Order: sequence, then C-alpha cells, then structure tokens
Amino acid sequence: MIYLDNAATTKVFKVSAQAASYAMLENYFNPNATYGSAVKANECIERSRSDIAHAAGAKSNELIFTSGATESNNWVFNYGRKNKKGNIVITAGEHASVYETAMRFKSSGTDVRIAPLTSQGNVDLQALISLVDDNTSLVSAIHVSNETGVINPIKAISEAVRRKNPKTLIHCDGVQGFLKLGEPLSDLDVDYYSASAHKLGAPKGIGLLYVRDGLNIAPMLCGGGQEHGLRSGTQNTPYIAAFAAAVKQFVDTADRTATANIRNELCKFFISNGCEIIGDGENSGYILSVFIPDVKAEILQNIVHDDGVIVGKGAACSGTKRGNRVLSAMKIPDTKIECCIRISLFSDTNSEDAIRAANIIVDAAKKIRSAHVK
Amino acid sequence: MIYLDNAATTKVFKVSAQAASYAMLENYFNPNATYGSAVKANECIERSRSDIAHAAGAKSNELIFTSGATESNNWVFNYGRKNKKGNIVITAGEHASVYETAMRFKSSGTDVRIAPLTSQGNVDLQALISLVDDNTSLVSAIHVSNETGVINPIKAISEAVRRKNPKTLIHCDGVQGFLKLGEPLSDLDVDYYSASAHKLGAPKGIGLLYVRDGLNIAPMLCGGGQEHGLRSGTQNTPYIAAFAAAVKQFVDTADRTATANIRNELCKFFISNGCEIIGDGENSGYILSVFIPDVKAEILQNIVHDDGVIVGKGAACSGTKRGNRVLSAMKIPDTKIECCIRISLFSDTNSEDAIRAANIIVDAAKKIRSAHVK
Repeated sequence: MIYLDNAATTKVFKVSAQAASYAMLENYFNPNATYGSAVKANECIERSRSDIAHAAGAKSNELIFTSGATESNNWVFNYGRKNKKGNIVITAGEHASVYETAMRFKSSGTDVRIAPLTSQGNVDLQALISLVDDNTSLVSAIHVSNETGVINPIKAISEAVRRKNPKTLIHCDGVQGFLKLGEPLSDLDVDYYSASAHKLGAPKGIGLLYVRDGLNIAPMLCGGGQEHGLRSGTQNTPYIAAFAAAVKQFVDTADRTATANIRNELCKFFISNGCEIIGDGENSGYILSVFIPDVKAEILQNIVHDDGVIVGKGAACSGTKRGNRVLSAMKIPDTKIECCIRISLFSDTNSEDAIRAANIIVDAAKKIRSAHVK
Repeated sequence: MIYLDNAATTKVFKVSAQAASYAMLENYFNPNATYGSAVKANECIERSRSDIAHAAGAKSNELIFTSGATESNNWVFNYGRKNKKGNIVITAGEHASVYETAMRFKSSGTDVRIAPLTSQGNVDLQALISLVDDNTSLVSAIHVSNETGVINPIKAISEAVRRKNPKTLIHCDGVQGFLKLGEPLSDLDVDYYSASAHKLGAPKGIGLLYVRDGLNIAPMLCGGGQEHGLRSGTQNTPYIAAFAAAVKQFVDTADRTATANIRNELCKFFISNGCEIIGDGENSGYILSVFIPDVKAEILQNIVHDDGVIVGKGAACSGTKRGNRVLSAMKIPDTKIECCIRISLFSDTNSEDAIRAANIIVDAAKKIRSAHVK
C-alpha cells in the first residue's frame, strides 16, 4: 500500500462505508422473513447482486455472497468437485486460502499437483497443462498474484485445460483481479471465481463465489437455505450494499491505465535507486513487489509507517509468517525475500503521492544502510 | 418481534451500528499485517474478544469469531468430532443450521439420532440420554428454542451425557440464549457453543464459536491462519467491534426479569382473547409463539405490518418454507401451525408498546374472522 493518509479517506471507501452504515439502519430486518420490511432488505440484496453481476459480466444467479474469498475458495475445494474424487492441480502462486486448503486435501490422500511459476511470476502454462490428466477434477489458478501483481492468463488456461480434459472444473481465485482487469467474467470461461469486496474498497467481511450458470455446487454451510439454498446464514445486508456501492464507485472512477502508469513510474524510480522489481510478467497495475538491497523489509516497514507510508512485507494474510512461499516459487533466495516490500496502489492513488512515498522509502533505506556499521 | 417502530431505533442497535461505522473508518487496515495501523486494528479485535469473553463467562482464547452461528454450527459438525466417527445425537428442536447439517451427515451414512421434544417444547432429557451410547461422538442441543423461547437444561444435559459417555463432545447452539439467561458459559460445561451477534442487536454477519480451553478443533476455513489458526479469512473488524458494543450495551441495560414480565403480560392478554401459547416450558422471556384460532399467520403478518407491528410466522430463517419442523415435533397439527405467529421481544421493548401491539394483532384477527363468510 501507498497510503500517504489513511486508506479510509479514499473516495471509494467512504462511499462504500456510507452505504454500509445506511443499510445497517434502513435495512436492519432479516431479509429471509416474509413481512414487508424484510422484503425491502431482500430487495436491497438482490439489487446489489444484480448491479455487481452487471459490472462483472456475469448473471445475477451466478453470484453467491460469502463472508469473503477465503470462504469461497474453501467452498470450491470442499464441495466444488464432482464426487470429491480425482486429482487437483494448483499453481505454486496461490494465496494461502487455496494453498493451505489444497494441502489439507493432500494430507488426507488426495493427489495434489503444483504447477511451477516462471521467474516472471506467472504460472508455467505448459507445465500446468502437463499435470492435467483424465483424473483431474479441479484446476485452481490465481488471477493476479497478491504478492507481485503478475497476471495469469486465465482464459488460455481454461482453454488448454478443457482441451485436455473437458470434465475438469476450473476455479480462479480472483481476489486481486475482480473488476480490475476489464475482462467480463463470462469471457474467462471458468466454472468458479472467488472475490473479496475489500480489495475494491468495501469493508472486510464480504465476498462472493461465482458459480457458472447450470453448474451444481453443494453448499458448504447448511441451514436456512439462504442464497438460493447455496449458502445458509442470515445475509449481511449492509456489507452487500457496501460491496455494490464500492463496485459502482470503482467502475465509475477507476482508471486502470492511469494506475498502471503510476506503477511504471514507481518501477523506474526504484530501479534508478538500485532496487529491483520482483516479477516482470504482465501486471495488474495495482501491486508492486520491490527488492531493496541490504534492508530488511520488517524494519523499513516500521520506519516509513511513521512518515505515513504503509507498505507490506508480502501478503498481509501471511504477514506474521516467515519467508514467502510465492516468491520462493519464483526461485528468489530467502536472503533476498526478507528485503522485499509489497506496495499496493489504490484506484485513486495519484502520481505525486506515489513518488513522494517512494522517496520516503528510498531515503529510509539509505538511512538504515548508513546506520549499519559492517 | 414486536416492533412498533423500526428495531434500528433501539438503543442497543444504534450503539452497535455506531461502533461498526466508527471502526470501518478508524480500523480499516488489515489486522493481520505488521505495520502500526494494522496492529491497532488487531488490538481492537482482541479488546472486543476480551470484553465479550468477560461478559459471557469464558476465556478470551475460547472465543473464535465467525460470520455467524450458521458457520459456527456447521464447523462443529464438520470438524468438531474426533476422527469424524461415531453417532450424533441432536434434539428435534434444533435450528435449521444444526438440523440440515446433521441431515447431510445422515445422508452420507452417519448414524444421526434425534431426541424428541415434550409438548412443553423442551427436549425429553431421558429420551436424549437413552440415545447416547459408547459410540456417540457428538451431542448437539439448542439452548433456547428460536420458535418458542423454551429453554433446554443444558447443564443437566451435559452432566447426564458425560456420565453416560465421558468421551462424547457436547455442542450447544446458543443463538437465542447467549447472554440472555445469565449463566456464565463455563457453568454450562459444554465443549462448543455457537452465538450470533445480531440477536443482541449487532448487525447481521458476525458470530462466534466458543471452544472449551484445551480442546482441539480443526479449522473449517483454511488459509492465512487468522483467529489463532482456527478460522482463516481477513477479520471483519467493524462488526467485531459492533458485537462487543452490543454486548456491553445489552449487559448494561437489559433487564431479563422486566422482559419476562412483559412476556407474561402478553401471554395473559392473548389467552384472555381466545389464543393459546405454544410451549409452556421454562422460557427465555424473549420469544412468544401464539396460536391464533382461524387466522392464517401469513395474512395476519401482512395486515399488522401496515400498523407497524412486525411478527414472524416461525423462524425467519425458514420463513419461506411451509410447515414448521419444530412445532411439528411438539405434536402440534399442521392446521394449527399455520395459525401460529412468533413474537420476539427486544431488551428495550416496554410493556405499553407490547400491549398496544398485541391489541393490534388481536383486532386484526377479529377483522379477518369477520370478513370470512363460511
């Protein structure tokens, strides 16, 4: 992140939080009850679903609201394979919520195959396809790497997998790609697609699973039969409204080219200051992984935080863990990984702020180096 | 519900929604990241957990935040039994999120035993215990019926189950009982306890699972290892703060005796108007199921809604389904069930409003009857 101020001051987040606060009071009632006020809450949910579907290039009945992409990803692995049989192919660049779920299946005897990454940061497509065979029930590939921002060619993966085994179901963890790459979901030709609303500026705790029209998935959460019987549990109407508001604000205002240009400026700046960009594959434009020689990311992170610059050291979801599985899969040595920071751009980050933050980072790195008597 | 105005105007809900809105902006950052602002969000979560634990009579490390009790209940059935073996005993009065989950296990071969209800609405304790044997891995009993408000004697159930099979794990779906009955969780002697924050006035979409200290439960959602490795997925900081705020407000202001007295007044009023109270077992004081002769609940519900009175026809979670499994288990005939309404009292419902609402209900019933030419 480059947050020269609090991210909560960004326009998209404010609009989304307002929508949540409004719906909390106005659509308080249980959307599954049958009285009038409840019907109104239900209408709010369905209007939100329809708006999000329209923006994403999907049908309303293909989107099921969940508590976030971790739930969506777990759901697909647990109930999205026919008969829960066959082998599973994932990429080495998956987020923990896919990777750890796959590892659980592996430890209970499922044949889980991991396609390697190239040094560019995307999956090695040929290697992935070579792992698919007649018994492959699921292929799961991340859309945009949460570590490097590098894009996987999901459509090409789908086509190649379907050519090799038309029965294989295809899942894409789209947390960092959802609405950010401009492709309609239907064009990706996947069976499942996971998204988290907070990556678009909504509050944390709401997401969705796209399930291709006509495909049956058994529910993971059983109960009252909400979400057309697919995801039980009283819906979080305020956050669903906030999700739709964030999507609208994002679609209306985000300029992918402008953000990508800012990212390119940052890349040039860091390179000219002796740093290195990790993963030079095609990039979403929203994430930047930078190797800063001789400076431990953890220390740098704390120093620049005091100057209002927020950077990650790898994905926040694994922030407290040592090492970095995804960067390791790109063959980056551990000694280098501990000097890598992750910068996220928001749709309304401007060039001036970004370069100012980059200067703060580079200056802090210089101070750290000069303070270090070898 | 008796809501003469919008429930969102109740004090506890306002306080909770304010806490959510505040945390949405102030604790925006990912609580699992390592920079300062993230640590602040994490502190908000841990302070909330500690406050809720204190109020509930549990230890902080025993409470894991989930997206709601449906998730908590599903979690226990899927991962809360040792080796996923043995038979399961539930009561016939369980909420759909327990009952339907148990039925899924039954359909895949698990021996699921259902203990009958008495006509009073609580579980037949002797019958339940007779179903427990050496192979029983889990007993699940609802604390307070979401249909009738009738209390199950959880402590007595725990004692009797442990006497018969000390290895059996005990789960209680406490959605309608959590903090409403005044017993500390530790006194119930259960292994698992589920709760949803919205029953205390918080927004919908946050809950918890209590897991007794020292007991291991495998996670249902794998990934980034949030919630001490037990529930992955970026936490919903605003709703966790809202949960804690609702708990504080509820504990500070709720007067169980006063609410129970209002319920008693309502019972007398309805009986004196030719109605019948369903389930005369010990009651939580917050729920009332009323049989109104010759008047279909669905029609009555719509008529009184226009006068600002909101009543349910059975649990909202099964609002669109026909029949009522729990009332049927109390041997109430279907012709009677379709004339039953469910009234929920809020902690700040006052006697005057409640009787006014009851008058509106009884008057509407008279109108419906008089309009009906036999």
